[in-house]
Parts: sequence; C-alpha cells; structure tokens
Amino acid sequence: MYIDYKKVVSEILDSRKETGGIHNIYFAACGGSKAGLTTADFFLKCEAARLESHVYTAKEFVLCPPRAFDANSIVVTLSASGTTPEAVAAARAAREMGAVSIAIVGKQDSPLAREGDYVFYNGDEPKYQYSTCSMAIALKFAVELLHQSEGYSHYEEMQKGFGILDDVIAKAREYAEAGAIRFAQEHKEDKVLHVMATGANYNVAYTTTTCILMECQWIHSNPIHSGEFFHGPFEVVDKEVPFLVLVGVGREREMDERAVAFLQKYGKRVTVLDGKEYGIDILGDSVSEYLSPLVFTGVLSRYSHRLADARNHSVAVRRYMWHVPY
Amino acid sequence: MYIDYKKVVSEILDSRKETGGIHNIYFAACGGSKAGLTTADFFLKCEAARLESHVYTAKEFVLCPPRAFDANSIVVTLSASGTTPEAVAAARAAREMGAVSIAIVGKQDSPLAREGDYVFYNGDEPKYQYSTCSMAIALKFAVELLHQSEGYSHYEEMQKGFGILDDVIAKAREYAEAGAIRFAQEHKEDKVLHVMATGANYNVAYTTTTCILMECQWIHSNPIHSGEFFHGPFEVVDKEVPFLVLVGVGREREMDERAVAFLQKYGKRVTVLDGKEYGIDILGDSVSEYLSPLVFTGVLSRYSHRLADARNHSVAVRRYMWHVPY
Repeated sequence: MYIDYKKVVSEILDSRKETGGIHNIYFAACGGSKAGLTTADFFLKCEAARLESHVYTAKEFVLCPPRAFDANSIVVTLSASGTTPEAVAAARAAREMGAVSIAIVGKQDSPLAREGDYVFYNGDEPKYQYSTCSMAIALKFAVELLHQSEGYSHYEEMQKGFGILDDVIAKAREYAEAGAIRFAQEHKEDKVLHVMATGANYNVAYTTTTCILMECQWIHSNPIHSGEFFHGPFEVVDKEVPFLVLVGVGREREMDERAVAFLQKYGKRVTVLDGKEYGIDILGDSVSEYLSPLVFTGVLSRYSHRLADARNHSVAVRRYMWHVPY
Repeated sequence: MYIDYKKVVSEILDSRKETGGIHNIYFAACGGSKAGLTTADFFLKCEAARLESHVYTAKEFVLCPPRAFDANSIVVTLSASGTTPEAVAAARAAREMGAVSIAIVGKQDSPLAREGDYVFYNGDEPKYQYSTCSMAIALKFAVELLHQSEGYSHYEEMQKGFGILDDVIAKAREYAEAGAIRFAQEHKEDKVLHVMATGANYNVAYTTTTCILMECQWIHSNPIHSGEFFHGPFEVVDKEVPFLVLVGVGREREMDERAVAFLQKYGKRVTVLDGKEYGIDILGDSVSEYLSPLVFTGVLSRYSHRLADARNHSVAVRRYMWHVPY
C-alpha cells in the first residue's frame, strides 16, 4: 500500500478552487470504524481555523444530512470489509452531491471502494502496522489537508511522530502485556466494566466499550467521557464497580487525572492506563495528543486478547453478527 | 421570564456584520445540560447551510478549544444552578475571545450569569413548562438565529409547534403514566438497563442513562445510538438484558424501528416509547423531529419518578454530589 497524500490533497483542493474551496469535511462510518475516524476529526476541530469537521454514524448522515454538506465538502467513509451498507450509502450520497468521496477500505474490490473518488486501501500490508491502519490513514489525510489548505505549524513534527509510531506502539504493547494479564484475571468474571477517556482518546474508550467489551465479550459498559464523569455517572462508583481509565498525555490530561483521583478514593477496582507510561509523550510535544489514540488502540488490543483468554471467550465469537439477518 | 429572541439575535448579527458575520456556534455544558443543548445543535446541523454548529462538554471546550473559535463565534453555555465551574469557564473563554457569550441559567445572580453577554434566565416561571425549559430556550434561540441569518423555511411551523408544545407534552405525560408504572415494576430490580435512540432524540437517551439511571438510580447503562447498535452493542442482547428504546417520528425513525425489530425477535425485555403514540407528530411535519426531544424529556421524567418510587430510591438521593469534594 502506498498513498500519495500530497497528490490526492492537491488534486482535491485544485478541483474546488474555482468554486470557493473545500469548506467542510464529514467522517461517516459505523461502530469502531466511526470511532477510528474521530481521531482525524478531533485533530481538525483543534487545529483548523476555517475547515469545519464533523463525525456521523453513517446512516444518520444519509437520513438526516447536514444542510452544509454540498459539492465543496469532503466525505470520508471507512469499512474494513468494504461492504458495510451504511458506509456505502454515505459514500454514494457524497458522489450524488458532487462532494469529494474518500473511501478507506481493507478490501479493494468492494462496494465501498466503488463509491470512492479516492480509495485508500490498507489491506495488503506485509504485516499489520498501526502507522498504516485506517485510523492513521484518516489522520494522515487530515494533516495533509490542513497543511495544504491553511498551513499546519507542527506538520514536520507530526511526520516525525508518524515515523516513530510503530516503534513506540511495539514497545507499548510489550510493556502492556503484564498489565493486560493482571487485568484479565481481575475482570474475567465481571458483567459490567466502564471505560473512561477524554479528548482524542475518547474514541478509544468508545471502541473498547462497543467492540471489545459489548461485541466480543458481551460485557456491559458505558464509554464515559472523563469531563462528564462528575455530572452523573460517578454516582455508580463503589468498591465493586470496575473502571478502566485511559489517561492522556496532552491538554486533556487533567480531566482524566481528576477522574482517576476520585476513583482511587471512592472506588477500588480501577485500572489506569497512563499514556506517559506507554511512551506516548515521546511522539512530540505538540502532536502526541493526536497520535495517542493509535497507541492506546495497540495497547487495548492486548487487553482485549488477554481478557478473551482469561474468559475462554474468543474475540471471534459472535451470536448475531455474520450469523443472522438483521 | 420573557426573552426577546428577535432582538437578541438582531443585535448579535449587527454586532458582527462589519467583521464577516457569525460563522459558527458552540454549545458547551456538562451532563444533562450538555445533552439539552444538543437539540439546538442537531437542528442547526440539519438546517443551516453556512452556520457551523458543535457541542462540547464544557471542560474540553476550555482545554482543547477549536481553532475556528474566534470573535465571530457564539458560545452558548447552560447551568441550572448557574455555578457549574466548567460551564462558567467556557463562558469566560468566550468573553476573553471576544465571542458572543450566551448563558442559560436557572439562577439570575450566579457566576455563569455574570459571564454572559446575554443571559437567558428560566428560573422564575410560575410553573414548570417544557416550552420554556433550557432545552427549549436553546432551540428557540437557534431557530431565530438561523431565520435571521440564512432564513428558515419552516420558521412559522416551528413557532406553531412551540405554541402547542406544552399541551402535547401534558397529554403525553398523562398517557405515559400507565406505561411508566409497568416499566418501574418490571425493572425495579435491574442492575443494567440500556437506552437507545437516534437523531435529535439521542441526547434524551444520553440524559436518561447519565442522569436518570446512573446518577439517580445507580443503574448501569449505555446510551446506544440506534444507528450504531448493529455495529457492536447488539451482541449483548439476550432474553434477560433490558432495553428502553425511544422511537422518533422523523427521518431517523427507520433506524429506531430496525433496532426494535431485532430486540423484539432476539431479546425479550424491551420497552418501546413510540413518539407517534405520544402525539409528537402533531407538532408539525417538518419540525416535530426537532421538538421531539422535549416531549420525550417530559415522558422520561414520569418514567424516572415511577422507577424511583418502585425502587424506593428517591431521585434526590446522591452519595457524592453535594456531599463530598471532587
């Protein structure tokens, strides 16, 4: 796989130059894929002065489309299989609108790929690398888009961060192993397990709840934003209720730390994954915050597999998905 | 309370006319207040061609501010007590930026009110009316803002909808009573109860989970978007796990219906609140979708109180909020 982000972005911007330029971008996908795109959305919300960015679950984008969505919009869709009907419909809506349709897929010959003006294919890597996963592809595209359209002062630092990302994640995953085994033993009997994060990492909490716990382990969970914790959810805290908290390395960190302090005082069963322990801050002072969801995704994958082992409940088991029509 | 939305909006638009106009609006609050503002945000996302709208939990808005936030932005904050520190900080950030700060408060002499260029006070109503609650105030402001800035073709229909809203809600609440009692009996022993909705109603699911179930009843819950249900969460469904589903009356309805059909086939303990049964569609073909969260909020308040009765767990009980520092 090789994606020439510079060329793609340059072509897109040129194509809309005469009509006022690209004014907004919509990320539209489902479940873990939607969460994956949120990293790019968060980056653009924080760093873009003019380009407006939004995330939608794909079906809502199709049924309740934003009125600001027009031929000067970009729509980024994502589906690993390339077949998710809602994502395909969103990409089709983009083409019908005359917007720019970007499809990120893990399968090149797929319905979603056929709806993309540009197809970012990440399926034929020799081995899985986080720096070329779908989340990273969407973020790299967003970084390039911002840089060419408005300028991004930390562009070089971001490229450096991407350059060392796989090493940082490999080390983080290795470091995570012991904790993942302890976590799995501690929680193998639990029926409820809440996950907390904030900022760019909130989407990792969402994926952990939605895909790892509810989808793969049938464990109830709420992905709680650390900034919302004290406005309702914290009342469930006692010495029994387990929480998993991702602590960010950027500006959002104080929200996570405040939640952890409370949990350590009034709760008991708290697992803290501190981004600093995983070396995320090495990725660059101004960019590590945006790259951190990629590292946490790598770490949580270890947690997911060790939990599956301890529960003797494979991550491949489903009761409905792939088995019944819905 | 009387708010002259026309005059406020006209003043705001005039104040930014020379500098390019208002280009975006940020809704920033916490918990149920944040969810309440989301109704206005959803409306603007759907109906505004130029004005871009976003919702933030207030602390994240302050710590990780969007770069597009500038003196031509509006920031709407909300706190019933007027004291929520995160909301106060967001309103202060708005003033420091030279943006327009709108504070919605239930207490006029309060820290949040002091940070508002305009203060929308809803605390001295003779009796509580949904048409003048904070959620409605934010929506009315958004409708007027859109109408004066870009035009809104269903403006009159929306005003008519607001005109009959309290009647519709009063009837809906009365109709809800029997169902609320059944629901409370059915679920009084449950430790987990998931809530589902989509579109404008998603924020009501969020509030039901966050404030009614987790905060007031210490029941675990995940506010699941109906459009996301089949991308992970549905794997927890069995004959024991309870779900509460709000079925919308607008374009989003098919997502809710699809989730309900699955739950009725593979689950067993499903409570469906169908907006049509509550007369929401009477509010107007083009606007009932946007007004429906107000009706569902009224209905869910009944469900909340009947559940509290059945569990003998008052909605006023907290173990941390108001009792310990955090």
